[in-house]
Order: sequence, then C-alpha cells, then structure tokens
Amino acid sequence: MQYSFAERTKAMLSSPLHFMRSLSTRDSFISFAEELPAEELFPVSSLEAAAAAVISKSPAALQYGEPQGYLPLRKWLCTNFKQMKHTDVNADQILLTTGSQQAVDLLARVYVEPGDPVLVEHPTSPGFLQILKMQGAVIVPVEGNEDGISPEHLLQQLESLRPKLLLVSPNFTNPTGVLWSLERRKEVLEICKSRKLLIVEDNSYGDLHFGGITEKKFYTEYPSLFSLDEAGKGGQVLYIGSFSKTVVPALRTGWAAGNKAMIETMVMAKQLADWQSSHFNQCLLHYLLESSTFDIHEHVQMLNREYETRLKLMTELLKRPAWKGARFEVPKGGMFIWVKLPEALDSVALLKCSLDKGAAFLPGTLCYAKGEGSGYIRLNFTHPGRDELLLGMNLIGEAISEFTARS
Amino acid sequence: MQYSFAERTKAMLSSPLHFMRSLSTRDSFISFAEELPAEELFPVSSLEAAAAAVISKSPAALQYGEPQGYLPLRKWLCTNFKQMKHTDVNADQILLTTGSQQAVDLLARVYVEPGDPVLVEHPTSPGFLQILKMQGAVIVPVEGNEDGISPEHLLQQLESLRPKLLLVSPNFTNPTGVLWSLERRKEVLEICKSRKLLIVEDNSYGDLHFGGITEKKFYTEYPSLFSLDEAGKGGQVLYIGSFSKTVVPALRTGWAAGNKAMIETMVMAKQLADWQSSHFNQCLLHYLLESSTFDIHEHVQMLNREYETRLKLMTELLKRPAWKGARFEVPKGGMFIWVKLPEALDSVALLKCSLDKGAAFLPGTLCYAKGEGSGYIRLNFTHPGRDELLLGMNLIGEAISEFTARS
Repeated sequence: MQYSFAERTKAMLSSPLHFMRSLSTRDSFISFAEELPAEELFPVSSLEAAAAAVISKSPAALQYGEPQGYLPLRKWLCTNFKQMKHTDVNADQILLTTGSQQAVDLLARVYVEPGDPVLVEHPTSPGFLQILKMQGAVIVPVEGNEDGISPEHLLQQLESLRPKLLLVSPNFTNPTGVLWSLERRKEVLEICKSRKLLIVEDNSYGDLHFGGITEKKFYTEYPSLFSLDEAGKGGQVLYIGSFSKTVVPALRTGWAAGNKAMIETMVMAKQLADWQSSHFNQCLLHYLLESSTFDIHEHVQMLNREYETRLKLMTELLKRPAWKGARFEVPKGGMFIWVKLPEALDSVALLKCSLDKGAAFLPGTLCYAKGEGSGYIRLNFTHPGRDELLLGMNLIGEAISEFTARS
Repeated sequence: MQYSFAERTKAMLSSPLHFMRSLSTRDSFISFAEELPAEELFPVSSLEAAAAAVISKSPAALQYGEPQGYLPLRKWLCTNFKQMKHTDVNADQILLTTGSQQAVDLLARVYVEPGDPVLVEHPTSPGFLQILKMQGAVIVPVEGNEDGISPEHLLQQLESLRPKLLLVSPNFTNPTGVLWSLERRKEVLEICKSRKLLIVEDNSYGDLHFGGITEKKFYTEYPSLFSLDEAGKGGQVLYIGSFSKTVVPALRTGWAAGNKAMIETMVMAKQLADWQSSHFNQCLLHYLLESSTFDIHEHVQMLNREYETRLKLMTELLKRPAWKGARFEVPKGGMFIWVKLPEALDSVALLKCSLDKGAAFLPGTLCYAKGEGSGYIRLNFTHPGRDELLLGMNLIGEAISEFTARS
C-alpha cells in the first residue's frame, strides 16, 4: 500500500538526524555527535537499592499514576527550586515529562499554529528545530554574541514578524555553549514582557557548570529568566528541566514549570500524547533523591569536576597541528564545544571521511533552520573517557589533514 | 500574560476527561471509570529481581537507548507474534512506545491532516477521540453489531467521504467489549484493501480473554487483521499492542507493528516527540520475560481466571432490583461492561449523584465524538476487588434508585 503521509512529515523525512541516528547503534566507533552523559559515573548502587525499595514497598508504584506526574517528585522539585535556584514554585505549576524534549514538544503542540513565526537562537538545538518543523512553524533566528541573543535583533524581528514564542537556553546554549550575562537576561525578559512574547527557557544543561562554584552561587549569578519573572506568576516564561544529565537518561524524566494555566493545558496534551510518563521511574527517582546514601548536589559536583577535566583535555587536543586554524570558545559548562573548522572545510564532507576512520561529530548544519553552518561542528566532551578522547580526536584530526593536504 | 493557545487545544480544554481525571487522585472512593489492572496481581517479586539484575549487570541500561526501542525486546515480540499469534514480523517492523496511547498518537501525527475524515467504531475509545480531535480530524463513526463494524455502513461512509484511516479494536472494543467474528474481520479487511484505507488495529485488550481457552487457540479463532494482512507486508494494517494490561502499566511499554516504511516514519516522529521511551523499563521488561521465574502465558491465564470471576460478580450485581431495566451483553474478555441505563436515566446526572456517594463510572458520552450516548455507562471490572465491587455497585445502585423514585 502506498501511504499518503501528512504534509508535515516531509521536513522530518529529509532530516540528516535520521542518518546520524543510524550511526549510534554501531559499537565500534567513537562518537562526539550525541549528548550522552558518562555512564561510568551513574549512581548505580544507589539506584539498585532504590528500585528494590520502591517495588517491594507497594505495587502502587507499578500502577498507572497521575498524568501530571508523581506529586512527591514535583514537591521535591519545588524544594530544590527554592533552596538552589531561589525560586518559589508550587507543585501544580510543574508537569513531569518524558525528558525535556517532550516538554518542548507538548508546548509546541498546544501553542504553535502552522505558519506561526517562532524565534530561536542562531544556531540552536537540532531537537528544537525538528519539533518546530513538525508543527509547521516558521523558524526565525535571532543573532547573538557571547552574552546571549542580541536585544536589537530581537526587537527588529519582533517588529517585522509578530512571533508568538521565543525558545532559548541561556545556560550553555546548545550548540554554542554560550552563558548569557545577567544584564542580557534582564534586557531580553523586559522586551518579551512588553511585547507579550512567551519565552521557553530550556535549562537542561544549567547544572553542569565548571570552575568549582556551587549550584547556589551559580544561580545567584545567573538566575533563570523564569526566576526573574517571579517563577511563572507573570506567566512570561515556561521553564524546562531534566534529570537526564544529572542522574541518568534512561529514567526519561524531565519537567516543565510555568504558570498554572499553561501547565494545565499541557497536562491535557500530555494525557492524549501518552497518558503519562513512567510512574515507576518517577517513584524510583524520588526515592533516590530522598535517600540518605545519595546526595544529588555532591553527585553533580563530582560530574562537573570530571566533565571539566574532559573539556580541558579536548581543548588541548584542539590545539594540535591538524586543527590549525580551527576556532572555538571554551565553554563554562554544558556538554559541547562548538568549533569553526579551518577555512574552506565542509563539515558534512569531513564527517563522511571521519566516519570511515571510526569517529563522529555533529555537523553544524543540523543546528540551523536553513542548513547554514557548514563550516562548524559540535563536539561532545562528556561521554568519551580519556582514551576515547585521545583516539577520536586523532581520527578526526587525520580526516582534517587529508582534506587540508588535498586543497 | 494572556496565552493565545493554538486553535486545536479548544476541543481539548472542554473535555470532560479533565473532570474525570481529577477524581482519580482521591483515595476514598471506588472507581469503575478507569481502565486499571489489579495491582494485587502484579508480578512484584519477579520484577524486583529483574530490576536488581538489570541495574547491576551494566550501567548501559541507564543510558540513552535507541529511539525505536530496545532490540532484544523487539525480537522477543517477534518470537511471541510467531508462537502465539501465528504472525511473522521482523524487529525493524516494530516501534516501542510509551503505552498504546502514544502509538496511536504518533500514527495520527504522521498520517492525519486537519480536516481529514477518520473512521472509528461507534462508540469508541475516549483516548482515540482525544487524539483525533487534537489532530483536527473529522471523526466519522461506523455503526456495528455483535460481530463488529457493519460492512454496508463502512462502504457507505467510504463512498461519500473518502477517509484516510479506520481505527478499530476487534478484540473487545472499548467500550462495548465486542469481539469481531472471523467472517467480519475478513470482510472489513477486504473492503479496506480494495479502497486503500489504512487500518489501525488496537489489540491492547486481546490477551485478556475468558472461558479458559489458550492464547494460541484464541488467536487461531480470532486472528488479528494484521495477521490476515500477512503481518504488515501488505501494509494495510498498523497493529498496536501493550504490556500495560498483561504485565504492569507503570513500565509504560506499548508498541506499533506494521509495514517497515510506516514504522520508519513513526520512529522519526517518536524521536522528536520524546527522543525515546525509557530504555531502562524496556531492559527490565525483557529481562522479566526471559527469566525462568516468570512465565507470561501462565501469568496472563491467572489474570484471565481472576478477571472472569470479577466479571461474573459484576454481572450478578447488575441483576439486582436497583438496576432493573438496565441492558448489557456479557463480554468474552477485555476490561469493561457497557451498560444501557434504565429508561430515561442520564449518565452524567447519575455520575454526579454517584460521586457524592463515593463511586464512579465512565459516562457513555465520552465514547462518542458528538457526545451522544447519554443513556450508557462503562464499568471496569478488572481493578476493584470483591469487596469494592459489592460496595461500589451498591452505591451506584442507590444513586439509580433515587433517580427512579423521583421520576
């Protein structure tokens, strides 16, 4: 039978993410393309104890739960918001989702009409771009610099297009790793407030910050837009978070926090999308977070020390001769280095060559709505261990040298 | 801030499911409204052992997995399809989802355009109706009888509307509990084949069949449309299944099985919707299903014996004086009895009165696109134990008597 798929799937079908994904199932090579945490740092024994305790305590943990998510875990998030992020949120302002990706998708489904202009950072997350394409949004990039998106360009795009939504990641933007300044956060929020533009603030990477500063101190210096907007009371900002990078990805637990009216609508969309995320995983996470054998703040500090070491090694490797002419900023957190390739090198051609050698990265083109950015690549430094970093960067370096020799 | 939600959310906002859901969080009353399995029958100790084994074996179970789902679990499903359902399927024809609800939602997202006519059984699952409304489909009911939907009415709707899709549950239709005859299955498939109409066949309830017959025998007598269509080779049928009713709901594992081209497109939609369902839960399920301490066939036979006992008790209670004039067929499986209320009783008014007394059911209106069916209710018999069944049916009976006395 010949299928007549909906028009909107066409953008999806042609996506190079499809190609990239097929690679991830191969064992034999080193990938800097994805955004995986280091599994050797997972809190395995605490999770094993938590699973046993949760299952043996009551079969209710294995039953259907609430579409909005397990209330004790939502309450834990409220306490964490208050203690670490200086933000007052109520449990009914939180929806637990299947990772942060679903939180953004649900928002897009309830908020974006086909043809609606939506503003994004330039470049931005490939996952966001896929969601917006599926909803038929007109994706409009806003230029920025090392302090965040440009208020002037934002105003200009607002005047001409009257968009409904702005999607940003002020803490270590994917892929560039930019950490917005406090001043820029305030400016952007003020502009959006005055124009009634809803902001979706993805903070999936914010807890991964380097330099040894505490979570409390980090969020004092870099308050979320959500916090600056009085935690959703104003309703200007929908905040997105996740346990995928700070605990483990396979429990697939992210969340959206925002104004109650927005969350209620998203809960209804959640219900029809998959009824609810895994109640068992939410109970397990909650048990872990409350357990005396596990301290998430210590755990994340350990992750940050280790990831910072990996980042330093990768930036050292980027100074080797093969990479001569490459340009990058060293990020202060997150999971990626965004690299401008030596002049005239095309990232997709380079990727093919690297793959033959056994190493992968994300070509920059996937981070732009119109496929620009062919001269950029995104490198993940959190997943590969020391040996993989050395070998993988060597292999990509060899691929670069071949291109450079040819030209 | 005043939100301007997408037009499509309006149907969702007014849904009475919203109201029904808020009830489920109250502990103090007895609900026959939902579709919950009995948690006292969950394979708790086997699951506890499986969780411990999976976590301690390798941290890879806690990492991101494949968007299409854990390959060994997909392969287990293929073996099960072959041995129990006489159907040859390959692992690349299967997508693991967050319950069967997400499988239907993903199909709708890739296949249904706003304004597309979609055929459904009359009445049908409230969850399906919500998905179709969200996609902006024009929902078109097809009448049926105790053998399944009417071929004549199907042909008539096909002629006049040229729909893209037919959604059915031939094994114990939700809410009516109808089990389609083999003859009717063949007729409907032939009609859809000749008109190139895609069928989505939900088999979430099929394994819950009563009368002591084995799974093998049941699926010989009642082969799925998918099996009659050579397991997706023809591409006419997309099959939907779930472990929610046969193992536990909280692992949120369902699946779609179909033609490879369809599954590939759905995998891409899955990826943007939430990247992937819980890899951990899929590993856990696979370990359980392969474990020597758990036999899913014996487990489901035990469930079926127990559920049949509860069904018998409920049908006995429906013969009490308060229910005089109520009409129903005793289903041969599934989770529900569909009851026509004594003359002139309105299900929503009766629900309000029942809720005051501490018992709930699903009003029939939620099973019709246009809110018909006010004289019907759906009763779940799998979740309540003996005492709850007695008490809950008593309370609803009291509510009925009050109405009858008044009129």
